[in-house]
Amino acid sequence: MSRYVCKGFQAAGVAAGLKKGGEKDMGMIVSDTPAAVAGVFTRNRIQAAPVLLDRERVRSGVCRTVIVNSKNANCCTGGQGMADAVSMGRGAAEALGIPEEQVCVASTGVIGQPMPMQKILAATPGLASSLRPDGFEDFAAAILTTDLVPKLAVETGDIGGVSFTVLGVAKGSGMIRPDMATMLCFVCTDLEVAPSMLQEMLRTATDRSFNRITVDGDTSTNDTVLLMASGASGASIHGADDQAAFQAVLDRVMESLARMVAKDGEGATKLVDIRVTGAATEADARAVADTIAHSSLVKTALFGEDANWGRIIAAAGRAGVPVDPDRIDIAFNEVWMARSGMGCGAEAEARATEVLKTPEFTITVNLNMGEETATVVTCDFSCDYVRINADYRT
Amino acid sequence: MSRYVCKGFQAAGVAAGLKKGGEKDMGMIVSDTPAAVAGVFTRNRIQAAPVLLDRERVRSGVCRTVIVNSKNANCCTGGQGMADAVSMGRGAAEALGIPEEQVCVASTGVIGQPMPMQKILAATPGLASSLRPDGFEDFAAAILTTDLVPKLAVETGDIGGVSFTVLGVAKGSGMIRPDMATMLCFVCTDLEVAPSMLQEMLRTATDRSFNRITVDGDTSTNDTVLLMASGASGASIHGADDQAAFQAVLDRVMESLARMVAKDGEGATKLVDIRVTGAATEADARAVADTIAHSSLVKTALFGEDANWGRIIAAAGRAGVPVDPDRIDIAFNEVWMARSGMGCGAEAEARATEVLKTPEFTITVNLNMGEETATVVTCDFSCDYVRINADYRT
Repeated sequence: MSRYVCKGFQAAGVAAGLKKGGEKDMGMIVSDTPAAVAGVFTRNRIQAAPVLLDRERVRSGVCRTVIVNSKNANCCTGGQGMADAVSMGRGAAEALGIPEEQVCVASTGVIGQPMPMQKILAATPGLASSLRPDGFEDFAAAILTTDLVPKLAVETGDIGGVSFTVLGVAKGSGMIRPDMATMLCFVCTDLEVAPSMLQEMLRTATDRSFNRITVDGDTSTNDTVLLMASGASGASIHGADDQAAFQAVLDRVMESLARMVAKDGEGATKLVDIRVTGAATEADARAVADTIAHSSLVKTALFGEDANWGRIIAAAGRAGVPVDPDRIDIAFNEVWMARSGMGCGAEAEARATEVLKTPEFTITVNLNMGEETATVVTCDFSCDYVRINADYRT
Repeated sequence: MSRYVCKGFQAAGVAAGLKKGGEKDMGMIVSDTPAAVAGVFTRNRIQAAPVLLDRERVRSGVCRTVIVNSKNANCCTGGQGMADAVSMGRGAAEALGIPEEQVCVASTGVIGQPMPMQKILAATPGLASSLRPDGFEDFAAAILTTDLVPKLAVETGDIGGVSFTVLGVAKGSGMIRPDMATMLCFVCTDLEVAPSMLQEMLRTATDRSFNRITVDGDTSTNDTVLLMASGASGASIHGADDQAAFQAVLDRVMESLARMVAKDGEGATKLVDIRVTGAATEADARAVADTIAHSSLVKTALFGEDANWGRIIAAAGRAGVPVDPDRIDIAFNEVWMARSGMGCGAEAEARATEVLKTPEFTITVNLNMGEETATVVTCDFSCDYVRINADYRT
């Protein structure tokens, strides 16, 4: 029995012939009863048809299912694209015998190509009949594009003696940056939560997770996080303590998924926390961490396992916030490589190089300007990133 | 006789042992008489010692020489770094028998390592005795780091029947983005120009050239453009027409050098003009062009010769300015691949792919929101960029 189950939900993933190799490429999650729903979407001004559709549908606060395809983003597809998104949702509604308005739709893949609707509609009934409580791993496989590994996380909590579950599935590997970072993420809970509270808590969790990672600084046109709450556990939220208990579990699930996305960044070989401390404001800390996390020169040095702190300090200097070079300290894990803006010598460099050889570590940049901190999670920038993205559509 | 000469100036480049392979690594340009000088410097908050020194010295408006080393940036080197920059300038002053205050200093290379002052001071007298009117090609070679080719440009103009020359030398290949784009650029003219006018005209030319190119979005700590005017041609500026004549020649020289820097971007195989038209404001046009020009996904697709206009439109959508996806047209040279935010089909794609196979082309993005335009010059993002930057310090 899979550990990835959540009371009141079923999921499935099938091969509809969209991916060339016959891999799974369509997925569905269904709540046995109408679930409360919340959504967070891309801030890119160019938004795919299913994003525009879901924004509307999430407003009702009620959702029964989400149907997803990979390989085609249904973006920059004009009026036909919106008709296709609606049609894809209608196919799911008919297969499940539920109202069309309670269906959300998500797509991920290449931009600007017409949707292979014949294949999608033909596969939908089979997708619906494959639904199983332990079908989330099939679903997770179906929504992948350039991802190397499926991404699932499950955590449980307790409210008033009744245990509840939060189960999340994500995909995303390129076109990843804060605001929003993942292309697609679907989270289920068997807790009962009112839609307005659900929306607020999803925004908070998104800001603590997907908005803190970067792969390549490109924001997708299709970024979507949907959170559905079925209430099937019998647990519900009464008061601030219960809300905090749920938020903590939700945060853990989404942080896990966000780290999985950064770790599986296209071509990535390292997962690196960029931690900025001693900033005058949190916004300053975030700006410096973001700039370092996005720097191609920093990311290629990480790939080369080169403790090139000069590139880190140079990125900090162009973050657009006041920094004083003579105060900056930089560490790789516990090894301080630069103090007061100057290198700590060959021995420190040798020890830092050992840290760089490990697959996961933290770079700390202390600005020594105040008390605020921020962390952004990034990955290195490898030859494989270039190869993957040079050949993506072929 | 070299074509790279400018009346009243001499230059030299020698090997001081800073580069491992015995290549030239120190350079000098000298004006026979005190020249008017103007300077534009990096906006990075972390600034190398020679940048801080030159900012001060340029204020006097008078300069006789600039001495330059490659391989070490003299940045993040603390009080010792500033002492070394002053000492490097003093060495040049002594070798030339001129006042120390009339020396500018520039360094480029690795950040955060102590300057090899013994080698630099030992090589300075030999550098001074190598000065020749046709020494600019040696100088250009000496200031290179990861550049593959030296970058020189010369143009002549005419004021009141007297011809004048503008000669420029640049280096820069990585850590390149608008504001400022080159690491180092030195321009000489034999025209007579007052320092305050020279400064204004240098700012204008910089904004039209180096601030319009990008390689990797990283702004250097050492970016410096110095412009020296000797007056040796006998021509001088009287009125707006003369000023315009000089500005045009200066712009041409600096635009040529800026394009050479983008073309020689680390690992670059393509030089691409990103031209945004139909914007509501010039700032909007610039923001969209910048975002496309910096996108790792666009740049890797260019390397892959993939006419992936979806990534271009997605980058336009995250530029932070209002765009309407249903109005956007995209062309590769004369081939329109997308109209009103939708693809123009397989034939257009095939023709666009032919354009992508050429080494230099223009991508036009018409926002159809107004009349304003802007162009940013970029290069593709190749496996070699990653390789060069992963191994830079080794």
